[in-house]
Amino acid sequence: MHSDTQQMANAIRALAMDAVEAANSGHPGMPMGMADVATILYSRYLKHNPADPHWADRDRFVLSAGHGSMLAYALLHLSGYARPTMADIRNFRQLHSPCAGHPENIELAGVECTTGPLGQGLAMAVGMAIAERHLNAEFGDALVDHRTWVVAGDGCLMEGVNHEAIGLAGHLRLGRLNVLWDDNRITIDGATDLSTSEDVAARYRATGWHVAQCDGHDGVDIARAIDEALADPRPSLSACRTIIGKGAPNKQGTSATHGAALGKDEVAAARAELGWNAAPFEIPADIAADWASAGQRSADDHAEWQARLAASPARDSFTARMAGELPADTGLDAYLNKIRAEKPNVATRKASEMALEALTAAVPALVGGSADLTGSNNTKTRSTAPLTPENYGGRYIYYGIREFGMAAAMNGMALHGGIIPYGGTFLIFSDYCRNAIRLSALQEQRVIYVLTHDSIGLGEDGPTHQPVEHVMSLRAIPNLHVFRPCDAVETAEAWGLALARTDGPSVLALSRQNLPSLSENSGGASARGAYRLRAATAKRRVVLAATGSEVALAVDVATALEGQGIGADVVSMPCWELFVEQDAAYNADIFPDDALLVAMEAGVTLGWERHVGRDGLIIGIDSFGASAPAPDLFAHFGFTVDAIVPKIIAKLGV
Amino acid sequence: MHSDTQQMANAIRALAMDAVEAANSGHPGMPMGMADVATILYSRYLKHNPADPHWADRDRFVLSAGHGSMLAYALLHLSGYARPTMADIRNFRQLHSPCAGHPENIELAGVECTTGPLGQGLAMAVGMAIAERHLNAEFGDALVDHRTWVVAGDGCLMEGVNHEAIGLAGHLRLGRLNVLWDDNRITIDGATDLSTSEDVAARYRATGWHVAQCDGHDGVDIARAIDEALADPRPSLSACRTIIGKGAPNKQGTSATHGAALGKDEVAAARAELGWNAAPFEIPADIAADWASAGQRSADDHAEWQARLAASPARDSFTARMAGELPADTGLDAYLNKIRAEKPNVATRKASEMALEALTAAVPALVGGSADLTGSNNTKTRSTAPLTPENYGGRYIYYGIREFGMAAAMNGMALHGGIIPYGGTFLIFSDYCRNAIRLSALQEQRVIYVLTHDSIGLGEDGPTHQPVEHVMSLRAIPNLHVFRPCDAVETAEAWGLALARTDGPSVLALSRQNLPSLSENSGGASARGAYRLRAATAKRRVVLAATGSEVALAVDVATALEGQGIGADVVSMPCWELFVEQDAAYNADIFPDDALLVAMEAGVTLGWERHVGRDGLIIGIDSFGASAPAPDLFAHFGFTVDAIVPKIIAKLGV
Repeated sequence: MHSDTQQMANAIRALAMDAVEAANSGHPGMPMGMADVATILYSRYLKHNPADPHWADRDRFVLSAGHGSMLAYALLHLSGYARPTMADIRNFRQLHSPCAGHPENIELAGVECTTGPLGQGLAMAVGMAIAERHLNAEFGDALVDHRTWVVAGDGCLMEGVNHEAIGLAGHLRLGRLNVLWDDNRITIDGATDLSTSEDVAARYRATGWHVAQCDGHDGVDIARAIDEALADPRPSLSACRTIIGKGAPNKQGTSATHGAALGKDEVAAARAELGWNAAPFEIPADIAADWASAGQRSADDHAEWQARLAASPARDSFTARMAGELPADTGLDAYLNKIRAEKPNVATRKASEMALEALTAAVPALVGGSADLTGSNNTKTRSTAPLTPENYGGRYIYYGIREFGMAAAMNGMALHGGIIPYGGTFLIFSDYCRNAIRLSALQEQRVIYVLTHDSIGLGEDGPTHQPVEHVMSLRAIPNLHVFRPCDAVETAEAWGLALARTDGPSVLALSRQNLPSLSENSGGASARGAYRLRAATAKRRVVLAATGSEVALAVDVATALEGQGIGADVVSMPCWELFVEQDAAYNADIFPDDALLVAMEAGVTLGWERHVGRDGLIIGIDSFGASAPAPDLFAHFGFTVDAIVPKIIAKLGV
Repeated sequence: MHSDTQQMANAIRALAMDAVEAANSGHPGMPMGMADVATILYSRYLKHNPADPHWADRDRFVLSAGHGSMLAYALLHLSGYARPTMADIRNFRQLHSPCAGHPENIELAGVECTTGPLGQGLAMAVGMAIAERHLNAEFGDALVDHRTWVVAGDGCLMEGVNHEAIGLAGHLRLGRLNVLWDDNRITIDGATDLSTSEDVAARYRATGWHVAQCDGHDGVDIARAIDEALADPRPSLSACRTIIGKGAPNKQGTSATHGAALGKDEVAAARAELGWNAAPFEIPADIAADWASAGQRSADDHAEWQARLAASPARDSFTARMAGELPADTGLDAYLNKIRAEKPNVATRKASEMALEALTAAVPALVGGSADLTGSNNTKTRSTAPLTPENYGGRYIYYGIREFGMAAAMNGMALHGGIIPYGGTFLIFSDYCRNAIRLSALQEQRVIYVLTHDSIGLGEDGPTHQPVEHVMSLRAIPNLHVFRPCDAVETAEAWGLALARTDGPSVLALSRQNLPSLSENSGGASARGAYRLRAATAKRRVVLAATGSEVALAVDVATALEGQGIGADVVSMPCWELFVEQDAAYNADIFPDDALLVAMEAGVTLGWERHVGRDGLIIGIDSFGASAPAPDLFAHFGFTVDAIVPKIIAKLGV
């Protein structure tokens, strides 16, 4: 390394050591190992402007190996971002510091996404790179022309989601995606050869990637590899051969540097080794100046881009798109009026497609897809042509059989901005992408999951494909709105609510089977999460709460009860999270104390006690499903009027 | 194909068409496409005995592309297994037929595992192949010397878990694992090139696999490829180029044959094309005889093996191992006596290691591992040497950063028999392997998940690593026992209960932080799932129910309440599922109606109403966590005596 550059890198090493030491917790090994690569990237390649971290055309930098968070914090601080301040870094891993243990997009501008769950940073970067090409196709080079950079570790490359992500990136020829692999050959358990014998370069090449290799501690060689990567039209992996914990003379190259403070003595030895004489958390003025200068490297680009934007006829539409604004008319109101009149008897997955036909025609930001279940998830519309290497302007992604990769890519698109991603799979396979759904929620991103075949109602495919615990399990994830609409109107309303929500994801759990129209006169009560769909005629003694396909059954049960003089309300609960936001009076009105509270949902009973209490009656399924035609299954599991009414009457003690 | 073999294959095609047609539901394309390959495998290579489907030394056959279930049912029926009968096949996909939509090990002997969730069949096969080599190392070629065969489709190869599974198999050089890839270049959405451009062969080679290729409709070529695979010491992928729906003249080669009945006309056309004149569900006698003969191909091997077993000094130990029996003394009782006396103040992850030290010394079937968190999960013991290609007799697997692959491999080991697998990762990353945990439960397998760092108590790593919804979400999975022990004694008891359980998996959710000994005098009450750890001294007005690390807090809260004259029971609930099995009287005794019921768990509140009702008080965390030292976090989220006591007093209306 050139001596100036070397000291810039050592500034990262020093901050990483100092912060981890102060917290007595954290991961010094990775920032110290990748300090040289990161310094070359930030000082010579990365297009960004610390003064405008939200610059739409900035390069995206993703620290997929999120445990090396001090690398990100050091880079942001040194290159001149307002935050983190040195005080923030001193409070690394302390309550209320934006310098969390793993980088969080919601804590710091400049942290493009929340990482730590391995592999997903890279997979989100794939989504960002898709978003870049898509918006480039729409708005042109003048406004959208940037790269996506990733620092990834061995963990990111071993995780299964990596396979899905790089397969998608290779297929879509995302040449502006550049992964810098921290090839240190160390994992937590020890040397990588404890658990893997893979030829990583060959694997990446097999999926359509360019692969370069370099000495990750030699600035000239690093730059050569990056230049090679930039010159190649394929997405690139640069294998940067590094020494984990580089600079800590007695511990470097071992997993001892990975996830614990180096200790006072080793820090002192490292300072000597690096020739770093400054006090903890202090950066010598000349090195700080070099970093400040590096942080200015794209200032001219930024100014020119702003001028182009100001002069662009697309200025307003581009700005609105990147701000995540919806058109004044999303097409939904007209569509809702239509189906309220027509009352279609359709599966809610079909109703979702109908709503999407209207929405995708009016909302260009909507980019859809499916993990190879397009015809089953009903996610493709006439407005959404395939997004391919030949047509990045397309708005429909054939994700392949890659649920986790899809979900992570959607997170990346949402984080990039300019796109509202939605994607489909079977509800059961939310298991395959569950942690990405969680990251949608944690990152507060508007990602919409179209999860069809939402119960035993899918029928013959059997228990491997029948979600029973999934709706409730998804409800358990914080900041996720889970909709299970009962008909076409509630489905359209769910789409409207999911789109209007700018601070988190939504799941639409949709039926395979047809469902009658029930909510056409509800006046949009879905927005309250739960509402009285039918009021008791006789004196109310029962409240029947249900979701999705069971709402129609609840209506039938209510009718049967009323026929015996037992008054019964029917409550549709399309979204628990919205209901919980209502006030106590509304809750008490919907679930009164003076009636038998009955829940009906073709899934696990656990959780329903929240609404019907320990004394309520819960009709659910606390076992795995079975393979049979759907009507046989509903009968088998007791979801019939004949099975339910006697239970209610017995419970009432009539 | 030789004409006899051709007709044997056509028998599979006919049964697949007929069964799907009768059900008007199912997947004919895959069985028809792979009929030739499967016929060659079953008639010339597979070591099995239809009369003894549980033969310990049989080859394992895994239909990873489980939607092609009729391939499995046809093969079992034709080669002479008692079930499925033709009546079973006629009832394909109907209630109570063992011929479910996707193959289920719990329905049919000869179905080695439950498949359908793509990729996992292959990943379970990796576990079976590990089990074979491990038991071979222990019991020798005379008793254990078989292969694992897999039929996999494009979906299985695209799923992320495939990457993890083949990486592990290549690293462990599982040369007796043979994957037959149904290379039909069709997925549900259409041609594979809609979503992938991968050079599959190159990818497999990069991970240490041998790759052969063949015409999947040419018997000679299929056999050549398999012979090549058998001759190579590496695990093998045979790319069998096939036509999906082969034989259906107007639909073959298209996704139209994938997941729907062909229709009456196309079935008739296919019968003509195949020269198949028999009525539906009828097999001509000569073809049936050929199949019956094929089914006998390993009869001599089977007899010789039985003779070897009978003569083996290891007979009893081998038989007991394969039957899943535990030694009379597992070492646990002595260990429990010791810690009941010593009352160690340790993290439950450490307590788990201590229990495992005793158990692994006494129970040779225990084979452990971790997804690269060995030192954090505390899963390695002195008795468990690494399992490597040089020492398959080792009992500890460095799974690498492959949670999903690990979980699926554990399922495969348990299904194989002879091994009780346990494996560790952080509780948060149960998300990454959730569907495999589900398959442990659905398949009723004794797999033990050691999931550490079970709450915000892990501290500084922050919200990406802090499970809040995970314990409750796992409780929602049917047939899964979720333990969250409060101290070393409960941890050891959880291990005992998990080992004693032969019909399903268990999760141990364990703390990172130290916890005081509390349950040393409980007398094994863990087995009831919940029990009164401390009885109120003053008149009981409150019951404090808690799990894991919050039990100690509950004791402190109770002490504070008692100090104010408010009697409070403390209930420890290490396993909800066991508690639910208790009778109503026990439930009423633990959670009486005449006390304020309070729940305390550092996770989502959803679900706790089951025990404390709508009127109870639930101290939980309904948001994501934060990055800070654990004590700061517990204080921040209100898990202190000072924060909780006033809430209880307010709720009591004192």
